[in-house]
Amino acid sequence: MSADYFAPFDTVRYEGPDSANDFAYRWYDKDRVVFGKTMEEYLRVAVCFWHTFCWPGSDVFGGGTFSRPWQAGPNDAPAAKAKREAALAFVEKLDVPYYCFHDVDVMADAGDIASFRRSFAEAVDHLEALQAQHGRKLLWGTANLFSHPRYMAGAATNPDPEVFAWAASQVRDALEATHRLGGQNYVLWGGREGYDTILNTDVGIEQENFGRFLSLVVAHKHRIGFKGAILIEPKPHEPTKHQYDFDTQTVYGFLKRFGLENEVKVNIEANHATLSGHTFEHEIAMARALGIFGSIDANRGDHQNGWDTDQFPNSVEELTLAMLEIVRAGGFTTGGFNFDAKVRRQSVDAADLFHGHIGGIDTIAHALVKAEAIIADGRLDGFRAQRYAGWNEGLGQAVHAADASLATIADLAVERDLAPQRQSGRQEWLENLVNRF
Amino acid sequence: MSADYFAPFDTVRYEGPDSANDFAYRWYDKDRVVFGKTMEEYLRVAVCFWHTFCWPGSDVFGGGTFSRPWQAGPNDAPAAKAKREAALAFVEKLDVPYYCFHDVDVMADAGDIASFRRSFAEAVDHLEALQAQHGRKLLWGTANLFSHPRYMAGAATNPDPEVFAWAASQVRDALEATHRLGGQNYVLWGGREGYDTILNTDVGIEQENFGRFLSLVVAHKHRIGFKGAILIEPKPHEPTKHQYDFDTQTVYGFLKRFGLENEVKVNIEANHATLSGHTFEHEIAMARALGIFGSIDANRGDHQNGWDTDQFPNSVEELTLAMLEIVRAGGFTTGGFNFDAKVRRQSVDAADLFHGHIGGIDTIAHALVKAEAIIADGRLDGFRAQRYAGWNEGLGQAVHAADASLATIADLAVERDLAPQRQSGRQEWLENLVNRF
Amino acid sequence: MSADYFAPFDTVRYEGPDSANDFAYRWYDKDRVVFGKTMEEYLRVAVCFWHTFCWPGSDVFGGGTFSRPWQAGPNDAPAAKAKREAALAFVEKLDVPYYCFHDVDVMADAGDIASFRRSFAEAVDHLEALQAQHGRKLLWGTANLFSHPRYMAGAATNPDPEVFAWAASQVRDALEATHRLGGQNYVLWGGREGYDTILNTDVGIEQENFGRFLSLVVAHKHRIGFKGAILIEPKPHEPTKHQYDFDTQTVYGFLKRFGLENEVKVNIEANHATLSGHTFEHEIAMARALGIFGSIDANRGDHQNGWDTDQFPNSVEELTLAMLEIVRAGGFTTGGFNFDAKVRRQSVDAADLFHGHIGGIDTIAHALVKAEAIIADGRLDGFRAQRYAGWNEGLGQAVHAADASLATIADLAVERDLAPQRQSGRQEWLENLVNRF
Amino acid sequence: MSADYFAPFDTVRYEGPDSANDFAYRWYDKDRVVFGKTMEEYLRVAVCFWHTFCWPGSDVFGGGTFSRPWQAGPNDAPAAKAKREAALAFVEKLDVPYYCFHDVDVMADAGDIASFRRSFAEAVDHLEALQAQHGRKLLWGTANLFSHPRYMAGAATNPDPEVFAWAASQVRDALEATHRLGGQNYVLWGGREGYDTILNTDVGIEQENFGRFLSLVVAHKHRIGFKGAILIEPKPHEPTKHQYDFDTQTVYGFLKRFGLENEVKVNIEANHATLSGHTFEHEIAMARALGIFGSIDANRGDHQNGWDTDQFPNSVEELTLAMLEIVRAGGFTTGGFNFDAKVRRQSVDAADLFHGHIGGIDTIAHALVKAEAIIADGRLDGFRAQRYAGWNEGLGQAVHAADASLATIADLAVERDLAPQRQSGRQEWLENLVNRF
Repeated sequence: MSADYFAPFDTVRYEGPDSANDFAYRWYDKDRVVFGKTMEEYLRVAVCFWHTFCWPGSDVFGGGTFSRPWQAGPNDAPAAKAKREAALAFVEKLDVPYYCFHDVDVMADAGDIASFRRSFAEAVDHLEALQAQHGRKLLWGTANLFSHPRYMAGAATNPDPEVFAWAASQVRDALEATHRLGGQNYVLWGGREGYDTILNTDVGIEQENFGRFLSLVVAHKHRIGFKGAILIEPKPHEPTKHQYDFDTQTVYGFLKRFGLENEVKVNIEANHATLSGHTFEHEIAMARALGIFGSIDANRGDHQNGWDTDQFPNSVEELTLAMLEIVRAGGFTTGGFNFDAKVRRQSVDAADLFHGHIGGIDTIAHALVKAEAIIADGRLDGFRAQRYAGWNEGLGQAVHAADASLATIADLAVERDLAPQRQSGRQEWLENLVNRF
Repeated sequence: MSADYFAPFDTVRYEGPDSANDFAYRWYDKDRVVFGKTMEEYLRVAVCFWHTFCWPGSDVFGGGTFSRPWQAGPNDAPAAKAKREAALAFVEKLDVPYYCFHDVDVMADAGDIASFRRSFAEAVDHLEALQAQHGRKLLWGTANLFSHPRYMAGAATNPDPEVFAWAASQVRDALEATHRLGGQNYVLWGGREGYDTILNTDVGIEQENFGRFLSLVVAHKHRIGFKGAILIEPKPHEPTKHQYDFDTQTVYGFLKRFGLENEVKVNIEANHATLSGHTFEHEIAMARALGIFGSIDANRGDHQNGWDTDQFPNSVEELTLAMLEIVRAGGFTTGGFNFDAKVRRQSVDAADLFHGHIGGIDTIAHALVKAEAIIADGRLDGFRAQRYAGWNEGLGQAVHAADASLATIADLAVERDLAPQRQSGRQEWLENLVNRF
Repeated sequence: MSADYFAPFDTVRYEGPDSANDFAYRWYDKDRVVFGKTMEEYLRVAVCFWHTFCWPGSDVFGGGTFSRPWQAGPNDAPAAKAKREAALAFVEKLDVPYYCFHDVDVMADAGDIASFRRSFAEAVDHLEALQAQHGRKLLWGTANLFSHPRYMAGAATNPDPEVFAWAASQVRDALEATHRLGGQNYVLWGGREGYDTILNTDVGIEQENFGRFLSLVVAHKHRIGFKGAILIEPKPHEPTKHQYDFDTQTVYGFLKRFGLENEVKVNIEANHATLSGHTFEHEIAMARALGIFGSIDANRGDHQNGWDTDQFPNSVEELTLAMLEIVRAGGFTTGGFNFDAKVRRQSVDAADLFHGHIGGIDTIAHALVKAEAIIADGRLDGFRAQRYAGWNEGLGQAVHAADASLATIADLAVERDLAPQRQSGRQEWLENLVNRF
Repeated sequence: MSADYFAPFDTVRYEGPDSANDFAYRWYDKDRVVFGKTMEEYLRVAVCFWHTFCWPGSDVFGGGTFSRPWQAGPNDAPAAKAKREAALAFVEKLDVPYYCFHDVDVMADAGDIASFRRSFAEAVDHLEALQAQHGRKLLWGTANLFSHPRYMAGAATNPDPEVFAWAASQVRDALEATHRLGGQNYVLWGGREGYDTILNTDVGIEQENFGRFLSLVVAHKHRIGFKGAILIEPKPHEPTKHQYDFDTQTVYGFLKRFGLENEVKVNIEANHATLSGHTFEHEIAMARALGIFGSIDANRGDHQNGWDTDQFPNSVEELTLAMLEIVRAGGFTTGGFNFDAKVRRQSVDAADLFHGHIGGIDTIAHALVKAEAIIADGRLDGFRAQRYAGWNEGLGQAVHAADASLATIADLAVERDLAPQRQSGRQEWLENLVNRF
């Protein structure tokens, strides 16, 4: 059915910056060693099922524009099988190691809970075979707890405990499937864990239930022996008016509240970061400072549009700043770069799927090359270290001394008649410096 | 000098909704009993020094437009004295109980640290006398750690420990002055505790130092026996590109990280809430759910302008939703409604200061009256309680049972073949219901 | 099929502000006379087909949640017929005079152009009968030029002239149907008349073609003798990254460019106004000043969400400001208040459709009552008139004198040594004044 | 006084991309020929007075941080003279040809209108001498009609005709000075031509007066024989809540209304573009399509901050897209790249002024080099042209035929049974293509 959809395309290879081939990598040289790893190992690139194989090109104001063979009719067992085959074939064509999925992305539509579980189980069996066949791996799995109407008022935060229980069933199965398929992480994105109106919402009860759910998931992970990371993916809103996992710092507070800050990390998405009023690099830096940096959903938003546009990243400049923070965080352990990005609705051809991914992968690879050069140069980090040098010396040490108090520090200021000198922050020079690379 | 500035105005009195007097309250009836307290006791209204007595009517693109007598020349000792006299006289004219200040608001300009402390000490002496003379009280005090150029790169988060020490001196004095003046709370707004560019910023070091500072302040509070609350005022950005105290949930995570969640609460400002992508009522509801609701900075922003406009609140509709959350939180303990609001730059007359405050005070008083009626009616809270009723029953209880696990709950879903029914969230009905009052 | 969907509900009647009936109007008293017309005649309320009868409760992240009988299967001829019957019955139940539709809203799905025209023609025949049966009228009709994949790159601004021609066919038929059904206006919303990326877009060609299309529509209107107004509905973006009809002033410039400023007016939507960085009242005031005020799409957005939420209006405060501008514009001629609003996705019951509309209609009716009182009071407009009084006198007249020049006016300033006095803009007093009503 | 402020710095020279010198250009090679002109002639770089020499490093929340010698005391005649000397010396050090100013930027403070004119006249005399001495030219002049309190409610749109007359005097003098100094353009930025509240505003009167003012300015230009362009600089808001010159399309409509579309062009600022909801390149493309492209204010905003941050441009990627539009517009005639950008408040050293300008100039120079390569490559424009090719052929021509009507075009669609094929918009491929350069 879809066996031939990507047949016209060759496997994408690295040909260097000067290649004129639209279907080659110009920067992603998977065997090049960066920071002691190959690029393939450092970036750990994944393709997502939902945007690339499930989404038909629809939006709020119009229907699907694509003509993928497996989308021609209902999403029944043969269609789902064809989609899975096409997906793994595509990942192999891109020659990247990983893919990601929600349960409903890979399975045929199903009604009651028994059928749902059976349909998913069949999909997992097939995926296991396809992984072996195509030599691909699972970066992470997740359960879709937001598309079905039962989740219209949330999953773990739903007023109805029956919905919570349904969600528990889906997550159990998706977590176990992720474990079986050798997945590196399990992700929770609480798309409807929030509210549409505060008038009918008790945020106290909902947050308690949300914490309960996460605690149960973590306990189950340990019970089944899953060694991968549990990741929360922050987003401020959309589809809900307000989502509880607003941003990285919000998630950190939530984890601390339920004692899970050593159990759960964040999966940071660029577009979610900007929707929440932050830069992408800010979110990574914060996650690193708080010890909860996990993985990346690579994409970009549109600064003039207030919704999740999920475009492929194409700014090497922006990604370089993000990559610097990832490098400072020591790179990924279980995480990676999942392309949670979709081609535009007008990009109707199979070729466009290649252009989107090749461009995105080259963007992060190029950013990695730049980050490597900036780190090697040393001036950026050197300036930063020097700026805080005072904290390693006399007064800085005195502030942190065990017996210091507000009064002793204030007394120092008074006794020494401190008149701190203004030191330039050198922002423009630093921007110029980064632009050199 | 300024003794007569407000002389032409009578004390503002309650005259009821039908009064035609522009200088009377129509809703703020201070002796009316609401939820077991007088309105005066429930709302605990304060006037702020900075916007109302210090700001000259300037903005980024233009100079001061006002002609307050005490602003005619330099802010020397006589001018500062005149300003303090005018301020307390104004608060008495409004017949509200409280005022708030930053150290630099109430004192004459001063250079070195010794002069600074001396100038502030003189101001505090004078304020103590003025409080007695005018029968007014201090809702909260704070130190301005953002206007002087020494704070251009932050106070507690400054790369230079000398600046940290200067800040310690200011906060020690401001906290002790607040204590001496009978202040109910001490507030920290970290206007420059953040960064302008992440390129020169180590958020790890800065957050550590920020936590250190707050811990020192809390310890000092206990040392001097101050019984009021320590409050952090969240704001997402401005003046910095990014401020660490982004919003209530961010502050909660920060407090948890440093073990201060039982020591520090939040002072929520309406305009800061909307700048951070939340509604005002959301921030209050979250603070309540997290147990850190402290006080309110009453104002409003402009939904079409992306900066802090600090306008007087004038939407009874919006304030009613916020007031409902405050009521649900049990009202204030040490907190209150501080009008962190400024008349527009074109509102150059003394009369405009009255119009701004009278309108703002009436808005919150009217909202309180409406909230009282909505609570009395009971349908709103009744609907909400019913919506979550399932959590008090069989399955809901089972989810929270001590021996429940993800597997036991998922098994329940499967065994019972759960197919949750869709229940209307009734948002439109609830909105209509609130609009009735 | 759907005959009984609204059967359980009585016709909605006015019962006054104190009514406890959730299904009664509290402010919309259709026979009350305001500004010389009945409320029914003044407000000219319409119900829209698309949100209320076509939309299934889906969003970008999830499928339909509603269970309307006519949505159970494919949108074939019987389903479309049932939908039309339900719709007109509902409008009658609300006892409001008007409805609005896009061609595709009212017809069965159809493939090629001949079937499309036939299907639409059948729908129009039926609507004509239903209008008579239910005693309802058409406020405006329009053609949907954005949902079908053929319009993915625009209709009039599509790079492919065949798409332009398809759009011409749809608009011809929709305009003629509107004429035949006695419609008061014909609306064009260019949902995809814009671009997703400027990289593949020639805005020069697209704007020329857009102007061409509009000119053709206007000519056709005159040819067929349609006396209603042609209206453009501005929106800044969504679904496209950028839409050409950004806001009222942009549309004005476009009309002027093609000589259509006396032929076409604007249909202003509240949510579109706020998405474009304006208030609703601003857009109306601008349209009035430019002579192109036509009609209103009543709804509201969410100030914290950057997309078109199309919620029912529920702020009497905001609507009062908009209503004042409408009153100053002399009210509607052919226009009216179309409720381009949808109940939330969780509002799954038929009752919710009543709550949404009743609340929205009462909101505008209440705003009209307030606007009437404010106009009658006279102080607001009096203050405003006084503020500009100088333009009716000496210097103001001199500025506009036919023989004045920059030099003569500048000379006056110099010779008279002008030193303009600062006059308070009285913003806070005006806000208080409006709040009294 | 300030003679030595920039003495420690050498003239900035081009040293090529590999230069390690922080004070050299890496891309701005003024003699390199691009599109038939030298880079110096093509880019026409200007330094602005206000941000670089007048602003003391203050913001809304804090005072000036800089220590420029001429800012040490009041802005009297010697200080203003020193500032002018420093400014022209700096422009020469940068080795760029142009500068820009507001009247108040270059003169000593003055009170009444006669003193004001005298003070400005002295400044102009001095500037004329300095231009000759340093070999620099004036890109444009303007009058500051927003900083003085008299303009708090606007200049041309002020309710008080006396303010209009004062503004007329300032503009007359500033326009004549610009003419005398050989300025290439005269700019009007209506910073307070808008409103703070619509409650006290008659947008009809204000827009009429605004049009009157502009017409007078244009007439005066012709009277004095000024051959440069009159430019309006759009901005959506700030300092006002709403500014009339919202964006390029709004300005176009305004010009058309007053018959000035052939007399006035736009000066587009990057940060103003993004504040109004557009990209920088969009505004340029629109100005070009409407025939009103004039000049550029080069800077950048912060996508997470909702105010005018006026940072130096540092994104070659973004500027390349803007530069492509400028190239397509045929480059500048009288316009140029004025750096309306300021170093950050923490960038307190003279060196930072160099870093900011060198980085900004190199960014636009690098973008020009990239645009040249993209144009030479031809694929981008080739794809675009091909996309619209249908408009040069049969059906496209038929649509634009003089005798075509909606009906004839619709008939064609029906008769030919048109079923337009979906063509990929190739957005991702185009983004990849641009990223190659």
